[in-house]
Amino acid sequence: MSQLKSVPRAFRAVDVIRKKRDGGELERHEIEALIRAYTVGEVPDYQMSAWLMAVVLRGMTRAETTALTDAMLRSGEVLDLSGLPAKKVDKHSTGGVGDKTSLVLAPLAAAAGVAVPMISGRGLGHTGGTLDKLESIPGFNVNLPVAEFRRVLDICGCAMIGQTAEIAPADRKLYALRDVTGTVESPYLICASIMSKKLAEGIDALVLDVKTGSGAFMKTEKDAAFLAELMVETGERMGKQVMALITDMDQPLGNMIGNALEVVEVVEILRGGGPKDLRDLCLELAGWMLHMGGVAETVDKGRQRSEQLLSSGMALEKFRQMVQLQGGDVGTIDDPTKLPRARYRMRVESDKPGYVTSMLCEQIGSACVILGGGRARKEDSVDPAVGIVLHKKVGDRVECGEPLATIHYNAEATAQQARQMISASCQISSDAVAARPLVHRVIAKRGEKY
Amino acid sequence: MSQLKSVPRAFRAVDVIRKKRDGGELERHEIEALIRAYTVGEVPDYQMSAWLMAVVLRGMTRAETTALTDAMLRSGEVLDLSGLPAKKVDKHSTGGVGDKTSLVLAPLAAAAGVAVPMISGRGLGHTGGTLDKLESIPGFNVNLPVAEFRRVLDICGCAMIGQTAEIAPADRKLYALRDVTGTVESPYLICASIMSKKLAEGIDALVLDVKTGSGAFMKTEKDAAFLAELMVETGERMGKQVMALITDMDQPLGNMIGNALEVVEVVEILRGGGPKDLRDLCLELAGWMLHMGGVAETVDKGRQRSEQLLSSGMALEKFRQMVQLQGGDVGTIDDPTKLPRARYRMRVESDKPGYVTSMLCEQIGSACVILGGGRARKEDSVDPAVGIVLHKKVGDRVECGEPLATIHYNAEATAQQARQMISASCQISSDAVAARPLVHRVIAKRGEKY
Repeated sequence: MSQLKSVPRAFRAVDVIRKKRDGGELERHEIEALIRAYTVGEVPDYQMSAWLMAVVLRGMTRAETTALTDAMLRSGEVLDLSGLPAKKVDKHSTGGVGDKTSLVLAPLAAAAGVAVPMISGRGLGHTGGTLDKLESIPGFNVNLPVAEFRRVLDICGCAMIGQTAEIAPADRKLYALRDVTGTVESPYLICASIMSKKLAEGIDALVLDVKTGSGAFMKTEKDAAFLAELMVETGERMGKQVMALITDMDQPLGNMIGNALEVVEVVEILRGGGPKDLRDLCLELAGWMLHMGGVAETVDKGRQRSEQLLSSGMALEKFRQMVQLQGGDVGTIDDPTKLPRARYRMRVESDKPGYVTSMLCEQIGSACVILGGGRARKEDSVDPAVGIVLHKKVGDRVECGEPLATIHYNAEATAQQARQMISASCQISSDAVAARPLVHRVIAKRGEKY
Repeated sequence: MSQLKSVPRAFRAVDVIRKKRDGGELERHEIEALIRAYTVGEVPDYQMSAWLMAVVLRGMTRAETTALTDAMLRSGEVLDLSGLPAKKVDKHSTGGVGDKTSLVLAPLAAAAGVAVPMISGRGLGHTGGTLDKLESIPGFNVNLPVAEFRRVLDICGCAMIGQTAEIAPADRKLYALRDVTGTVESPYLICASIMSKKLAEGIDALVLDVKTGSGAFMKTEKDAAFLAELMVETGERMGKQVMALITDMDQPLGNMIGNALEVVEVVEILRGGGPKDLRDLCLELAGWMLHMGGVAETVDKGRQRSEQLLSSGMALEKFRQMVQLQGGDVGTIDDPTKLPRARYRMRVESDKPGYVTSMLCEQIGSACVILGGGRARKEDSVDPAVGIVLHKKVGDRVECGEPLATIHYNAEATAQQARQMISASCQISSDAVAARPLVHRVIAKRGEKY
């Protein structure tokens, strides 16, 4: 066997750019060197954006995607939660309208004995964000230092914070660049961004909720399934247990959209009530989290256990405990009417009788943004009180003049605009249609027992 | 007809990037806005490089290529030479090894009554550059101010300078960015770069010499023809007469490679002698320049007139005049042995008898760079004296021990390396082969009479 080692050639970003441009497969060390050099500022933005565009148009192999995820993950701190006896499981959603499952799932899984160290994001575009919803609870602090995050997790079994500067700094820098260079829409880059942050939480397993439909980033089931399979395989290659559900976002999830309104609906679910679609999806996702967290033999048993934890009030109690530990006013959980409330209400009425056959879900999300409930740009602030309460969903019968929705608003002009948008987004027809199924597909490996 | 005008939306670079990324055709105003904003620094390098990569991978339509060329042209000054009575014609080569035709053609066409306002570049990579060759003539000033450039042109009919800061500044900025972001190799971007600079010279017609073969940037005739057709059509769309020759660069042009050595060979041609391949190509290109410049009814008559101008010494006299007007030492033209000369000579001998069947032309160009005659990086300086004189070309018979080439050098180590490279690049075989034809294809529109 030869003792000769190849002399390592100096790393040149332009060589890596050209190789990807020409459709070549990058080696792990090339991707690592690129991300490392970019994170410390040795590779400038203008080289990285050329490389990102080449990735968008040329794609990546599974090995490259894993190497990129790993390099981004290791650009910062990886939490070491090995001191916790419970299995650490998190859940991530690709984002949608009215998607408040995280606020239910963290305390629900924790109540079942799974540890949930959840690091979430803010809303952007037409979608809501977990941090904005949590912050509608007066006093709730999403910016805990890592030591405090651990302490809450230790005591309560779940904790929910925003991304810290220490976690995956390469992703933070890359995301800002992708946003202004038309390089957001790549499943490979989306996968690496999500998975690098999630796996930096030091978790054992991850449940992914990949949304599809008019309110999702992935409009088609095909695109959603591609991303889901990519993330599942990347997670597996990195030695983690990962599965994904492809779920429906062709209409809002639940009936409430808007930060404080969504907390109201979360409390309804945690009290054993709430709308069926939201409850069903929470139970489905919780079933997987409990199964992967080792506290339920099958997903079905995890679902049953979760139902008990909702009806017994155990999950609500866990949520109350977390809110308290993170500085939030638990009085608002005990009596959700104490949450921030908009000054005015406006009804959106149907101008004809019939059945709701579809909703332009993205447009309903955008109506909430216009009310002040979301962000058009990252630096915008949000109004926690405003939002939309839907009275009808797809498949429902509506009479002429009957309300489709109620707008909660603080500024008249925004409400008029939102009303028009909601009105235009609801299709009413004389023939009834069934709503799309909630779970379109399950993507899991390693032969879990469902 | 409606009086309504669409409200112009604020220009956002990211929208233009996304449109090109998705394979859309950009509007003229979008390309104009992008180039204008980039030139003044309102669009940052990182957005431009993402756009450039999208162009490399998605391509451009003819209309887009023309809009880009036009926007780059109008990013700076366009020379107004309408005061000159003669037709203004220039020639551009995509670059090769031993390609010194510009130095012959400018005075030759000027001697026939065509005005030649030539703005050229420096060598990069394995190729030589016209400015470096001219600067090997002691005193020759390639950095004339525009007013002085006009004066020389007025008096002499030709003038040769480098790109000024006023000409196509967008190209200067874009080229530097393309060089470090892997976005050089796009026929659309190459076309816009060449044509924007050339048409900023205020010319009426342009003869393009697009090289193909092992010493050219376009290795295959297909790629060369694609670029040539693109440039011809872009020129036509911009209202100029443009034609292209696809010519051979599978071996060096002429026998001499290296700056001062190439001036020696230019003087040989201008004296009516010189190697056949170089002379033939000069006459072919000159034929087209004279025809397009309106002083020859056909290309063939232009070729014949050019032969007379070489044999009569009129073209040499024009070269002498231009050198004098641009501050060069005409004594070196009268006696080329006064040009810079390397201190040492080394022969490269054949180690077997046979026929030269091929030369790796790029490698011979690189050998000259290693001797100090070219640039590996833009900021390198060149040694005017060093170079290579070829004694054999493809098709020639060579005996064992007979010299293939003589290296002119100033540093022993570089000569040893160059000798190895030249030796390895010459293929000797027992069977004779014919050299490839010099002109592979003619690409012209508007039905010129050949």
